[in-house]
Amino acid sequence: MTQLIDARKGMVTPAMEAVALAEKMNPGVLRQSIAEGLVVIPMNNKHMGCRAVGIGRGCRTKVNANIGSSQEHCNINEELEKLSVSIEAGADTVMDLSTGGDLDSIRRLLIENCPVPLGTVPIYQCVVELVHDGLAIRDLSENRIIETVRRHGESGVDFITIHSGLTKRAVDKMPQSGRIMNVVSRGGAFITNWIRTHGRENPFYTCYDRLIEIALEYDMTFSLGDGLRPGCLHDATDGLQMDELLVLGELRERAVSAGVQVMIEGPGHVPLKDVKSNMELQKAICHGAPFYVLGPIVTDVAPGYDHITGAIGGAIAAANGADFLCFLTPSEHLRLPTVEDTREGVIATKIAAHAGDIAKGISGARDWDDEMSRARHARDWNKMFQLALDGKRAREYRESSPTKSPDVCTMCGDLCSMKSAEDKDKNAVSDPTL
Amino acid sequence: MTQLIDARKGMVTPAMEAVALAEKMNPGVLRQSIAEGLVVIPMNNKHMGCRAVGIGRGCRTKVNANIGSSQEHCNINEELEKLSVSIEAGADTVMDLSTGGDLDSIRRLLIENCPVPLGTVPIYQCVVELVHDGLAIRDLSENRIIETVRRHGESGVDFITIHSGLTKRAVDKMPQSGRIMNVVSRGGAFITNWIRTHGRENPFYTCYDRLIEIALEYDMTFSLGDGLRPGCLHDATDGLQMDELLVLGELRERAVSAGVQVMIEGPGHVPLKDVKSNMELQKAICHGAPFYVLGPIVTDVAPGYDHITGAIGGAIAAANGADFLCFLTPSEHLRLPTVEDTREGVIATKIAAHAGDIAKGISGARDWDDEMSRARHARDWNKMFQLALDGKRAREYRESSPTKSPDVCTMCGDLCSMKSAEDKDKNAVSDPTL
Repeated sequence: MTQLIDARKGMVTPAMEAVALAEKMNPGVLRQSIAEGLVVIPMNNKHMGCRAVGIGRGCRTKVNANIGSSQEHCNINEELEKLSVSIEAGADTVMDLSTGGDLDSIRRLLIENCPVPLGTVPIYQCVVELVHDGLAIRDLSENRIIETVRRHGESGVDFITIHSGLTKRAVDKMPQSGRIMNVVSRGGAFITNWIRTHGRENPFYTCYDRLIEIALEYDMTFSLGDGLRPGCLHDATDGLQMDELLVLGELRERAVSAGVQVMIEGPGHVPLKDVKSNMELQKAICHGAPFYVLGPIVTDVAPGYDHITGAIGGAIAAANGADFLCFLTPSEHLRLPTVEDTREGVIATKIAAHAGDIAKGISGARDWDDEMSRARHARDWNKMFQLALDGKRAREYRESSPTKSPDVCTMCGDLCSMKSAEDKDKNAVSDPTL
Repeated sequence: MTQLIDARKGMVTPAMEAVALAEKMNPGVLRQSIAEGLVVIPMNNKHMGCRAVGIGRGCRTKVNANIGSSQEHCNINEELEKLSVSIEAGADTVMDLSTGGDLDSIRRLLIENCPVPLGTVPIYQCVVELVHDGLAIRDLSENRIIETVRRHGESGVDFITIHSGLTKRAVDKMPQSGRIMNVVSRGGAFITNWIRTHGRENPFYTCYDRLIEIALEYDMTFSLGDGLRPGCLHDATDGLQMDELLVLGELRERAVSAGVQVMIEGPGHVPLKDVKSNMELQKAICHGAPFYVLGPIVTDVAPGYDHITGAIGGAIAAANGADFLCFLTPSEHLRLPTVEDTREGVIATKIAAHAGDIAKGISGARDWDDEMSRARHARDWNKMFQLALDGKRAREYRESSPTKSPDVCTMCGDLCSMKSAEDKDKNAVSDPTL
């Protein structure tokens, strides 16, 4: 039983009620959106204590934080700290992308400690275990995929990225694509190699019906990955990306018909002027399915600042229909993110999501800004810190630079525009600046 | 004699030649744009060694860094350090907004050390000196304005912000505006108070012709300030802002006719979906004059991160016609920026400007990204650091997290998508991941 099947039967589940409350939506309207596949609530029936989070039409734009070990750097305590820092900073979901250490235990430990939906990319585990078994990517079989995905379902994973849309047709076209970067998705690269070695169709595509069965069993949401997403501005919005998007649209129909909740993943690296059309195209091809984007980053030249390049693209994406933003950290393209990078990445992406929500007209989004503006006008610093997206940081900045007058800051001091206007309103003619 | 007057006479000055070379433009086309007031080259004839920087149609989007002391925090060495850090990080211009200490000496020292155009806001000095003389804002006279602006011209200031567009008509309308923040520009607040006290017209408006004479003498570019710019999303794109914009359009015509180079300043705080229309409106009302925007920031709730909220708005602004972005630092709304804040602010704003330039189709802008993408594809780390907007930061991040394999990073290790694709291309079947 899945939220989608329940919704189709006309049932409003407790999860739907919780989401409707959080999003200030009518539960009946939400149920209808879920029934049509326009909203998902990723929530494995084995993930105890998971918060119901709605992603899609009419919902606040959600933010995902990627955590997880790599083969170069594996420290479970650090990953647990990243988990808790992410939640504290306001991440709506997390993904465990671990590729180093004992993947089953890491995943179980993270899920146990995770109060929000947790996603994974099972192909990473398939590949790591193949290598561990003395085998190689070419030895990846449908049975191994199914067995791994089932383990993820059984352990309580709420959503999985599967790259079923990357087909042999696209791989055959690749040499003529003219791309600079070819494939930058790790999952996409593995599958591309597999297809080229065997000359056969992507096993994630051929075993798609079996994946649907597992998803139905656990109510595990599919996040249909874009293995051919552009990895640089040059490669954006090209034939390969569009080819995969068309397949993703078809795959989405099959899963939704069967009762599985589905999101679609999107780029990547996209020039600013093309972000809007990318969003509109995805929504058209995938019939309004929730859209989960990585960035998009709007320039390739700023490694060390990709939380900012991603926030620019993410804000424009959200304003134009993206429902779910995967964070980028300052470490993107350079190293496994640190705990502090993770926090910075969540905050930057929350800014993008909120700016997008104001533009989308999400109910109540702008009220937050207006309340902050009233506090700022009143120079009520405590209220400002309470309302700030990161009040701790704001307070630290202000307190690091003490003022003589208690109600201003060191930028303008007593020349503060709001203070002088207010003093004027009070006819405080004793103020020397008036 | 000004660049504008020379351009009208058909002369291509050395400054125009330098700008044409830097912008890869035809000098004749540039001269024509300057003659029409669509491009400015702010360059006081007393500022020795100043780089010729073109701002406006067809030019790369430029970035300004604000530096300067406040009455709460005044340390000239720190300001000199901010100047050099700004230039190093790629600021195209700086503004000295000092209000603390000996303003004439600070300004002279900064100009001496400033290889790029330097701007000021002379009303700050008027007010500081009034208070120093035991007077108040209400005692501001046209003569004091003229005398102060002349001192700025004489010391080599390349562009000045003057709030001549804030008129009594707008101040009279203000009580009915429904704004949360009213006036947030410091200059705007001083002038508003002056107008309310005297019930007379803004002295910067009434002495505009005298200001034009000084500007002509030094070729000091006017940056017509928006004293009524919105200070929060709630107040954006309202009657007060538009009223002032109409006056700015008229004032621009008067100055340009007289031969003075003019830019127009813009918001401020603007919801994401309204940034584009704000840019288009300004360009229409001001006949294509170069547009200098502060941010705009797209949400009010993120003090501590306004370099990011500003980069989002600035990128969209630049993509839609803004020519010149004033930076915001993480300290905006909280304290006088530190040296490190200043650096972060410049870099974030450079990202926005470059993302905008790609969207604008500025000649050669995307080539930089493509070169980076080729280096990334080749895993040529030294080339990536050379090309990066902040190669030092990128290198530090990577080196802080050492890898076993030299050509990957700790995010993916040997599971690097590009490495595995390349190994596959080489038929390196011995690689266990294939």
